[in-house]
Amino acid sequence: MRAVVLNCTLKKSPDQSNTDLLAQVVIDELTEKDVEVTSFRLADHEIPPGVVTDLGGGDEWPNIHRLLLDAEILVFATPTWVGRPSSLAQRALERMDAMISETDDQDRPVAYNRVAGVVVTGNEDGAHHVISEICGGLGDIGYTIPGQAWTYWNRGPGPGPSYSETDEGHEWSENTGRTMAANLHAVALALAERPIPA
Amino acid sequence: MRAVVLNCTLKKSPDQSNTDLLAQVVIDELTEKDVEVTSFRLADHEIPPGVVTDLGGGDEWPNIHRLLLDAEILVFATPTWVGRPSSLAQRALERMDAMISETDDQDRPVAYNRVAGVVVTGNEDGAHHVISEICGGLGDIGYTIPGQAWTYWNRGPGPGPSYSETDEGHEWSENTGRTMAANLHAVALALAERPIPA
Amino acid sequence: MRAVVLNCTLKKSPDQSNTDLLAQVVIDELTEKDVEVTSFRLADHEIPPGVVTDLGGGDEWPNIHRLLLDAEILVFATPTWVGRPSSLAQRALERMDAMISETDDQDRPVAYNRVAGVVVTGNEDGAHHVISEICGGLGDIGYTIPGQAWTYWNRGPGPGPSYSETDEGHEWSENTGRTMAANLHAVALALAERPIPA
Amino acid sequence: MRAVVLNCTLKKSPDQSNTDLLAQVVIDELTEKDVEVTSFRLADHEIPPGVVTDLGGGDEWPNIHRLLLDAEILVFATPTWVGRPSSLAQRALERMDAMISETDDQDRPVAYNRVAGVVVTGNEDGAHHVISEICGGLGDIGYTIPGQAWTYWNRGPGPGPSYSETDEGHEWSENTGRTMAANLHAVALALAERPIPA
Repeated sequence: MRAVVLNCTLKKSPDQSNTDLLAQVVIDELTEKDVEVTSFRLADHEIPPGVVTDLGGGDEWPNIHRLLLDAEILVFATPTWVGRPSSLAQRALERMDAMISETDDQDRPVAYNRVAGVVVTGNEDGAHHVISEICGGLGDIGYTIPGQAWTYWNRGPGPGPSYSETDEGHEWSENTGRTMAANLHAVALALAERPIPA
Repeated sequence: MRAVVLNCTLKKSPDQSNTDLLAQVVIDELTEKDVEVTSFRLADHEIPPGVVTDLGGGDEWPNIHRLLLDAEILVFATPTWVGRPSSLAQRALERMDAMISETDDQDRPVAYNRVAGVVVTGNEDGAHHVISEICGGLGDIGYTIPGQAWTYWNRGPGPGPSYSETDEGHEWSENTGRTMAANLHAVALALAERPIPA
Repeated sequence: MRAVVLNCTLKKSPDQSNTDLLAQVVIDELTEKDVEVTSFRLADHEIPPGVVTDLGGGDEWPNIHRLLLDAEILVFATPTWVGRPSSLAQRALERMDAMISETDDQDRPVAYNRVAGVVVTGNEDGAHHVISEICGGLGDIGYTIPGQAWTYWNRGPGPGPSYSETDEGHEWSENTGRTMAANLHAVALALAERPIPA
Repeated sequence: MRAVVLNCTLKKSPDQSNTDLLAQVVIDELTEKDVEVTSFRLADHEIPPGVVTDLGGGDEWPNIHRLLLDAEILVFATPTWVGRPSSLAQRALERMDAMISETDDQDRPVAYNRVAGVVVTGNEDGAHHVISEICGGLGDIGYTIPGQAWTYWNRGPGPGPSYSETDEGHEWSENTGRTMAANLHAVALALAERPIPA
């Protein structure tokens, strides 16, 4: 079983990404369950705006698209900016929009029988909204969203420390992340054994 | 297999509900697949505000709560008002909030291994947002949301006819509703055979 | 100058409302500026579902509607449930939907030249989303939303104490509430002196 | 009086932007009222991800930032993708996040006493949500949002023609756009005469 992590932080490597830190808990738990995990930081790649799979001319999305189709599990990880998913998270959804009309060899939308979950960090507020936005988009595209397949960390009200700057609340976010990994894995297995038919 | 339909129209019976008309397509398709469907109009019942399962004193929610726990499938159907889910849709989510801490005999949240989808009508705009809001809430509670488990009808921009007042767009909404029913049924079956473990 | 506070807590009086506690900061600041403030807890009133101003038969909304039309300032105060505005907040928006087509003696929508702001409490996350939802609805109806006309309190990640159970973060929320009151008052004055014309 | 239009279409010039076509109605009406309008297509500029005003190294945001500070009126125009504001719309909000802590010579947030409105196009559904998201973000930053300062066009349910491919609904969207321009102008004038004080 394979998983892809799309980290939608605004920071390029090697800058530390808070979202990366929390996503790592989910990655570790998936790896523990023998899932092979590939992780991407969108900010490190050239992904121009558009709603088709290959825009040509140096577009690096086609490679990510191929990995999405190889993976049963998608972990969508994003910071919260102005209370909303990052511009790179929306960029990914836009590029995935093309998948709505791509079908597999049994004529099912390519995202069918794949599962997705969401990891969110931020220093204030907005995680549940970000989760709803992204799961809403992924459900349109055809991904199944297992129950409680998300984790988050923030610390309101108002401005405050980032995830990496404090330990407050980490335990809850990490435990919730391990549950998320377990639920993604269990529902992916169920759909592998008994897929949504054509 | 059993399904419950929560119709969150603001209208009491016997007034015609547009949401009911579109939900019926989903009900028919589920029935075709031998799913036993029970349908509720929340406006016909006494459901006071609160976040516990039984508020006492004539509260009719406990009966609906019991049916939710007997059903593998939930169809959440709501009109769009001021671009958002109806107050009765939010009322239902609030009452279901108690389910987050209710567990089954294997100590799993009671909503685990159940699936949910959304039917939306409105005369203008807002369906994808309503779907995201409700799926976000139901995912918190533990429901699994199959890919493309929704249908909707509206007709923007600006004010216009209701669903029952025109035939425009019905075919798309009905076909999408039948796909929704098939996806709900398939994922419910997959989870029945191979449930998310304790 | 007059203001109305709609408190959309799910609790009836005399139960303590966290939302009330934070709204009081805004009320005090408005009173300091010689604004006459009337406060309502929707849960204490009979407000049936619907989208017209008077549903008859004991409907208590018409009285609130009258006060809204007498007030230049609206403070919309709500708890966060399942990450979203309360069912009573949505109930109020639905009843205010009728105001979209009500006009004043110069044929302007009745909400024109009135301002609104939002107070949110919750024990986890979701305030910015609740603010966006309510401001979005009120902007449809015709209210002007001054910059930074909101305050909130929550304390994520995960479940935790309510506003009344801790002092953490209160100072920020209270200062932000005083700024909100000042901005509501300033923009209401500007529109009183130079109203949006017919 | 000056206005800036940020067109967040994913298409570079000279490709036709549907959002541009509808925004033009607002531009014409503002011009009619002697407002000087400058229009930008974000896709034509190099605007890297980040949350500061000047990222250096070819960053073209500082120029747009300067024009925002010269303008009393902001028209935020965006297509709808996957039911949400475009990635370039979120990019702009992220770059404007820095404005929250920038102050004018009277120590007020720089966005105070400026007004903003939203133009949305899409071929399906989602405009009210997009408007709420963007107005929520701009209100955080300090912009005042006049009542009914938005217009949109879409045509649900399901996929269908783009704005430029049909005339259906244009009249309503155009009239609503002219009202939007009038309300932006009126509230900008009111705030110019009687600004929110320091």
